[in-house]
Amino acid sequence: MNKATLLELLAAVQSGTITPAAASQRLADMPYEDIGHARIDHHRSLRTGLPEVIYAQGKSPEQTTEIFTRMAASGTDVLATRADAPTASMVVAAIPAAIYHPKARAITLKQSTATEPTGHIAILSAGTSDQPIAEEAAVTAELFNTKVTRLFDVGVAGLHRLLDVRDQLTNANVIIVCAGMEGALPSVVGGLVGVPVIAVPTSVGYGASFDGAAALLGMLNSCSPNVTVVNIDNGFGAAYTAVLIARASARRS
Amino acid sequence: MNKATLLELLAAVQSGTITPAAASQRLADMPYEDIGHARIDHHRSLRTGLPEVIYAQGKSPEQTTEIFTRMAASGTDVLATRADAPTASMVVAAIPAAIYHPKARAITLKQSTATEPTGHIAILSAGTSDQPIAEEAAVTAELFNTKVTRLFDVGVAGLHRLLDVRDQLTNANVIIVCAGMEGALPSVVGGLVGVPVIAVPTSVGYGASFDGAAALLGMLNSCSPNVTVVNIDNGFGAAYTAVLIARASARRS
Amino acid sequence: MNKATLLELLAAVQSGTITPAAASQRLADMPYEDIGHARIDHHRSLRTGLPEVIYAQGKSPEQTTEIFTRMAASGTDVLATRADAPTASMVVAAIPAAIYHPKARAITLKQSTATEPTGHIAILSAGTSDQPIAEEAAVTAELFNTKVTRLFDVGVAGLHRLLDVRDQLTNANVIIVCAGMEGALPSVVGGLVGVPVIAVPTSVGYGASFDGAAALLGMLNSCSPNVTVVNIDNGFGAAYTAVLIARASARRS
Amino acid sequence: MNKATLLELLAAVQSGTITPAAASQRLADMPYEDIGHARIDHHRSLRTGLPEVIYAQGKSPEQTTEIFTRMAASGTDVLATRADAPTASMVVAAIPAAIYHPKARAITLKQSTATEPTGHIAILSAGTSDQPIAEEAAVTAELFNTKVTRLFDVGVAGLHRLLDVRDQLTNANVIIVCAGMEGALPSVVGGLVGVPVIAVPTSVGYGASFDGAAALLGMLNSCSPNVTVVNIDNGFGAAYTAVLIARASARRS
Amino acid sequence: MNKATLLELLAAVQSGTITPAAASQRLADMPYEDIGHARIDHHRSLRTGLPEVIYAQGKSPEQTTEIFTRMAASGTDVLATRADAPTASMVVAAIPAAIYHPKARAITLKQSTATEPTGHIAILSAGTSDQPIAEEAAVTAELFNTKVTRLFDVGVAGLHRLLDVRDQLTNANVIIVCAGMEGALPSVVGGLVGVPVIAVPTSVGYGASFDGAAALLGMLNSCSPNVTVVNIDNGFGAAYTAVLIARASARRS
Amino acid sequence: MNKATLLELLAAVQSGTITPAAASQRLADMPYEDIGHARIDHHRSLRTGLPEVIYAQGKSPEQTTEIFTRMAASGTDVLATRADAPTASMVVAAIPAAIYHPKARAITLKQSTATEPTGHIAILSAGTSDQPIAEEAAVTAELFNTKVTRLFDVGVAGLHRLLDVRDQLTNANVIIVCAGMEGALPSVVGGLVGVPVIAVPTSVGYGASFDGAAALLGMLNSCSPNVTVVNIDNGFGAAYTAVLIARASARRS
Amino acid sequence: MNKATLLELLAAVQSGTITPAAASQRLADMPYEDIGHARIDHHRSLRTGLPEVIYAQGKSPEQTTEIFTRMAASGTDVLATRADAPTASMVVAAIPAAIYHPKARAITLKQSTATEPTGHIAILSAGTSDQPIAEEAAVTAELFNTKVTRLFDVGVAGLHRLLDVRDQLTNANVIIVCAGMEGALPSVVGGLVGVPVIAVPTSVGYGASFDGAAALLGMLNSCSPNVTVVNIDNGFGAAYTAVLIARASARRS
Amino acid sequence: MNKATLLELLAAVQSGTITPAAASQRLADMPYEDIGHARIDHHRSLRTGLPEVIYAQGKSPEQTTEIFTRMAASGTDVLATRADAPTASMVVAAIPAAIYHPKARAITLKQSTATEPTGHIAILSAGTSDQPIAEEAAVTAELFNTKVTRLFDVGVAGLHRLLDVRDQLTNANVIIVCAGMEGALPSVVGGLVGVPVIAVPTSVGYGASFDGAAALLGMLNSCSPNVTVVNIDNGFGAAYTAVLIARASARRS
Repeated sequence: MNKATLLELLAAVQSGTITPAAASQRLADMPYEDIGHARIDHHRSLRTGLPEVIYAQGKSPEQTTEIFTRMAASGTDVLATRADAPTASMVVAAIPAAIYHPKARAITLKQSTATEPTGHIAILSAGTSDQPIAEEAAVTAELFNTKVTRLFDVGVAGLHRLLDVRDQLTNANVIIVCAGMEGALPSVVGGLVGVPVIAVPTSVGYGASFDGAAALLGMLNSCSPNVTVVNIDNGFGAAYTAVLIARASARRS
Repeated sequence: MNKATLLELLAAVQSGTITPAAASQRLADMPYEDIGHARIDHHRSLRTGLPEVIYAQGKSPEQTTEIFTRMAASGTDVLATRADAPTASMVVAAIPAAIYHPKARAITLKQSTATEPTGHIAILSAGTSDQPIAEEAAVTAELFNTKVTRLFDVGVAGLHRLLDVRDQLTNANVIIVCAGMEGALPSVVGGLVGVPVIAVPTSVGYGASFDGAAALLGMLNSCSPNVTVVNIDNGFGAAYTAVLIARASARRS
Repeated sequence: MNKATLLELLAAVQSGTITPAAASQRLADMPYEDIGHARIDHHRSLRTGLPEVIYAQGKSPEQTTEIFTRMAASGTDVLATRADAPTASMVVAAIPAAIYHPKARAITLKQSTATEPTGHIAILSAGTSDQPIAEEAAVTAELFNTKVTRLFDVGVAGLHRLLDVRDQLTNANVIIVCAGMEGALPSVVGGLVGVPVIAVPTSVGYGASFDGAAALLGMLNSCSPNVTVVNIDNGFGAAYTAVLIARASARRS
Repeated sequence: MNKATLLELLAAVQSGTITPAAASQRLADMPYEDIGHARIDHHRSLRTGLPEVIYAQGKSPEQTTEIFTRMAASGTDVLATRADAPTASMVVAAIPAAIYHPKARAITLKQSTATEPTGHIAILSAGTSDQPIAEEAAVTAELFNTKVTRLFDVGVAGLHRLLDVRDQLTNANVIIVCAGMEGALPSVVGGLVGVPVIAVPTSVGYGASFDGAAALLGMLNSCSPNVTVVNIDNGFGAAYTAVLIARASARRS
Repeated sequence: MNKATLLELLAAVQSGTITPAAASQRLADMPYEDIGHARIDHHRSLRTGLPEVIYAQGKSPEQTTEIFTRMAASGTDVLATRADAPTASMVVAAIPAAIYHPKARAITLKQSTATEPTGHIAILSAGTSDQPIAEEAAVTAELFNTKVTRLFDVGVAGLHRLLDVRDQLTNANVIIVCAGMEGALPSVVGGLVGVPVIAVPTSVGYGASFDGAAALLGMLNSCSPNVTVVNIDNGFGAAYTAVLIARASARRS
Repeated sequence: MNKATLLELLAAVQSGTITPAAASQRLADMPYEDIGHARIDHHRSLRTGLPEVIYAQGKSPEQTTEIFTRMAASGTDVLATRADAPTASMVVAAIPAAIYHPKARAITLKQSTATEPTGHIAILSAGTSDQPIAEEAAVTAELFNTKVTRLFDVGVAGLHRLLDVRDQLTNANVIIVCAGMEGALPSVVGGLVGVPVIAVPTSVGYGASFDGAAALLGMLNSCSPNVTVVNIDNGFGAAYTAVLIARASARRS
Repeated sequence: MNKATLLELLAAVQSGTITPAAASQRLADMPYEDIGHARIDHHRSLRTGLPEVIYAQGKSPEQTTEIFTRMAASGTDVLATRADAPTASMVVAAIPAAIYHPKARAITLKQSTATEPTGHIAILSAGTSDQPIAEEAAVTAELFNTKVTRLFDVGVAGLHRLLDVRDQLTNANVIIVCAGMEGALPSVVGGLVGVPVIAVPTSVGYGASFDGAAALLGMLNSCSPNVTVVNIDNGFGAAYTAVLIARASARRS
Repeated sequence: MNKATLLELLAAVQSGTITPAAASQRLADMPYEDIGHARIDHHRSLRTGLPEVIYAQGKSPEQTTEIFTRMAASGTDVLATRADAPTASMVVAAIPAAIYHPKARAITLKQSTATEPTGHIAILSAGTSDQPIAEEAAVTAELFNTKVTRLFDVGVAGLHRLLDVRDQLTNANVIIVCAGMEGALPSVVGGLVGVPVIAVPTSVGYGASFDGAAALLGMLNSCSPNVTVVNIDNGFGAAYTAVLIARASARRS
């Protein structure tokens, strides 16, 4: 349930097509649905502006499908991240309108009416191998109705590739930078622009990258003060916050 | 040099009070001044919207004072963080209009004309011991002309203290949460609001806090997707990004 | 051998149905049975109040089955944790009364006479993915004749889910909280109640969760002083201690 | 404010010595007092059974003294941990009835009426150097009206010292074990008794003890399932939980 | 080539059955054989008293077999550790007198004449799961002609099991203790005896055992000063040093 | 595009066989080719003296093959590292002149005219298991037209093996040392020679080698000041830098 | 009390100069003396062959002096390690026969009759800065009546220094090697000799030595199988075990 | 003793001004001088091309002065690093020609005849706080007769500062880059040039820089393959290797 469906409900009360008692019942159900292994937080959209999202890793395909179906039933857009192919098959079989994005390992269901995208996010990746994380971020932001510019493979060892896309950076309301190895790209990007940069360390690399810890530490120690950091490989979280910033920024008249 | 002083310069050229050659000379000086031990990036304000800031730790009082004085001469607001008392004395002696904030260990110089604050940041601290970091964030944001609401000592072990200030949270464009020990507060706050939350792990704690590493890891693993993280004790960096978000958000309609 | 079977033995001596020599022989056997690869500590029940438990991981199905069978022969309840399906099949084939709990990966054998449960434990999990660990705790506590209330998926990012079950928390003698990611739930729960809280970090999460280390550190640094911690994913250990506390607490009045 | 003072208040209302309005005012003040740098949680005693405690480290002597004085004014017992000598001097000057325990670095104020201690805790230390932490635990437990048996310097390298005090272990409702270096003592104790053991790793040791991390890891991996762990050097937290267990256990019969 | 075969060679020179030139040639070959991917150190036996040993992990079955065969050809006893089944099959096919010990993952070839064992090593394991490492130690020591007493599953949580075998400990010249989890056993054993104790941390455990790091740190911090430590799971190394000590010790009287 | 093909292009302009406009077009294409998932940096050869190299790990066989083919089309030598067999098959099918080196997991394509090798690199490995990394270094250096002397299995536990090849060390312009376990070899080699030593920690070892971290730390702490270090298992990077040094050194006289 | 004083006591009983009751009383006192903050283990000498030793760090000068005095009173040799100058002054004032070794930070008291040293230990240090740890080992071994050969500053970066003292190595029954930085020396020494090598990592070094962790890991991963390891900077522990080995070895015919 | 003084010695033999016996004596002294606490490796210059250097940290002023004086007596240039002011005073008092460089914490003594510098090193620092390490490198390189270009405060957050000095980079034979925080500068520099880059992580930074570990990991994971790394804050080691490379490179005719 999101703001729109809430207003619809209240309007229905006003117009008499639903009794206050029935409306009250629906509102009372709102906080969450307890389906045994999970408590679905339908309320979240109202509270935080964006719907709860299913983290499919560690859940069985059956569990993910059940939660996905319940959420779909409430009429909101739905997103499941870290979904493998068997999970995706089961979800799409249950909800044919759902779409699987294999590179991003995400399943999306668009149920809200399409409107003009609000806000603009540039998503950079340092190398080809960082692409799955960058795609997770892109798919998330697009489902949440934000314009995305993808700028992939612009790592710091070939600086001219980054300088070439500088103009595209300055148009964005917020920038997401996905990088593994030494994680240097966010610092360089942060020094070039005047908008927030959200850094996503990726687990790309070998040896002393320690599964992304090197990139994570590098980003946390960025000398550019407009850089904040999310968890390793957490493209979804970066996009979620970026959408909040982009929406607020875009509303400038 | 910031946008305003740049436009002034160009206007002076137009009006003939300064020759194009002299203006050109000043612009050529802009990118940075090389004073031997440092290259001052006056250009930064133009490029990123906020002035470069002096990180005083690891610099001698003389070095900090020299950089501070050069920056002051360019007419912008100036901020030095991590400044101890001897450094502050020397800076204030050189620039009497500068103010030392001992709790925040920051020196500020306000030279821009006072205007209505743009945007609103709520700054929370989990405990009394986290206050210095929270104050560093507050002083930074206020110098950058943003409204700050301080909500200190609202840690999760006494949840009613946090729930009591919930209304004040929802008014902010962005929230900074400073917490040491287990670093749980950002996740709880993140679940209550629909704006970005910037988490600042502090080095408060003992034993297995490992100088803030426990709080840092906790925040990076937050189950609230609107949480991003900065370095341990980095109140300044959190405020810098928060100001960028608050400004953009505040310009709504 | 537990206290009851010991008293039975001594009564048999008193009544003359067993000779002192034979009784002595049985008592001499008590400390442990040496079966080559293991020394079974039948004595433990007498010494610590609860039977020794088989940690099946790293043992072959044959080894686990042999130890399980020997323990079963002594008449006590038996528990094997971390048992995979092949091990469970072999054990159940040997001891048909044994039950396999696949979600908890535990095998139980109830041989003691059913009595009214003693004491009451609430077991919380932060997310659906923490359920296997929470179930291991629940199965353990139930075998040891304690009442269990399961409260799953009540993580801190949706605080109202936790506040809704607050009444159920206050009825318990002790609370077990299983959480991965940032491990914040025990601190919040600890602040709401006046009973001991046993925190179980789980290896749920990705990136900088470092296989549960982030949750572990968070819990160790809890600002709620009624929180103690066990090893990552150690649902069994948490339940074992919780049973000891619940039994003692329940004997009030 | 604790349960006793609450009942007193309500009795005063009943007897008419205080008006409902005034009582209501006092109750409304209860949750916490906001004194700027801290929000004192007077409510805690009611909610969790034991008063909030002041963690003096990282607070100025003035801050600690102010919080201590406010708490004292509400009539409860008060405890400040990690207090250095200057802080203690200032607190005792303000509240002459307060007592400083230098070995434990704790300040206590007993205001409740003395009653028979409830419950019994044995506190063990592995070596002489672990004593400050063990004393912090002992002082805490005694202020909270629990009987304490101190058994110091009973480390595992001289096992007969531990076996000699075995009888004293079996009389306790709960056992606290403080140990640095390899942290082996809790496992050995845990195997000898049938009550909960709370392990406190200490930062005693050198080299690869890594400031207590070795002992912490050892205790978390204890093969005795009745062992739970608190933070390094956290004698207070261990005692707090032990008091909860001892009280509940002591009420038997 | 070992001391015996060297003396034989020199005797042959003395007796004229081999020319000095031919002997010199054989001695010149001694330091090592370069077979491309490896330089076999036949010399080692002469230099250090025990033959070089093949570490089969990370080598192909073909490589291990080739090195094994070359070593066998020089007449010494041969040992390969960390050998999987396919490697063992290939080696035994090439050298039918070689024996595979699957539990210890070791291949041995006894070529020296059997003599009375020299010295006595007790090998303890804390739990059943530590057995493979303990067996690697035992097989190594036995090949090197030392008497071995196996004392398995005597962990500290059931102290009476250890105290029962105390007599067997005091007969040994040196003791090897294999333990995972908290690694407490070596400290306890070290306090009971007056001979060197070699501690082998094993990777047995879960969660915060961090693949044996917890046991390793515990053992390094042992409060018993007669404990030294080898690498995690390094049963071979422990036995190698133990054999050196046992041989020297056994030559008493 | 490398210097030679650039000069050819410019000569063609001079001689009129290509118009300045066409040449300009080719030069404009130089910086990189954007093929969607990657931006190929043909420019690199000109800028840094050696061509960009494909890091195949984390790329699909299709992606690697496409990038390899594009690079091959520009006429330079091409190298792909960390290529598994399926990737190699697909690349060699597309570019039959490419060669797969399975031990080094590298694919090479030699397109430049063969000339006398420039400079001389000695590559040492401590053990047989370090060979794959040493081979990656050797294949890289040979493709880049440098003479390589392989000295494998010369670890410090049999010092005479190293001392025997000492003469071969002193002939090299630079030395690469690959070692796992304790990583001691570079320090010893560094003390014997007067040329730069590049240390490559390998992930060979078990237990507390922590996947090469022990060797890495050892090498970083080398007491020989002519030792620098690259990432764990990074044979390619070591060779790349070594080639730069060897080329410069070789041009003496 | 050691074996000699025990036999004296028993002889006194036999000869009637002490009554059995009085002897029994003295024997009953033996296990330990409880002096409040410490339980002195006089029994240890009898049980393990060497007296208990005082670890002075973390103890007050008064505590160390009291324990030292009690031990001295029992007639054995006494050793205190990690003693600073104020502690030494107080001990020597109380027991004038005690000697302070400032470089080793050790206090020794020789009370046993001087006899011919038993066994021979070579103690090596890699650099001048490792000397304090090496001296702690040497002082310990000498007090325990073992011959010590000091070979300092023979680090691997100047291999000829080590090779020059090779003969002195081969005469020892056991070798202690103290090294910081990369900790390579034990592996090299281990490869040269046929006796046990006890490696002592020291906290000498900077940066990535991480206070000795680099040396520790290096030594644990030694490719020489006759190397065992003790804690960082634990010269005492190394010497204690070395004395046990040297004594046993020296008793050869 | 270096090559020049050796040739002088041999010439003196040839010319008869020194007898072969005396020369032999001097050569026999060469390998090292044993002065008790140190073995001075005069031989090193001959073996590796550069003199041994004194690491003053952890040595007493007396020890450093003694070693410095002995080295000075052999006629070579002498360098002591990590020397504090008291040590410097004592050394300069003993050897008045020695010079103390307080920023670099180094003492130098130039005794060789001044010649044209051989080779050219560019030394970059990311920020003002990295300067001491950069200066240690510069002083070292200059003593070893290499030309140094200092380029300080050119961190990646203000990329134009780096791009401005690009020409100066391309003139150097080798580049040293000192950077703390995220350690991104070497990767960016490495991508711009075709010479070896030696990266020096510095301990500058706070929080999650973990005393330089973040920068170290970043540099080890550099995506520029011409980057090798030395220990944290090891400006000396970087310069030592850089001098070897610069010399070899400079000899290009």
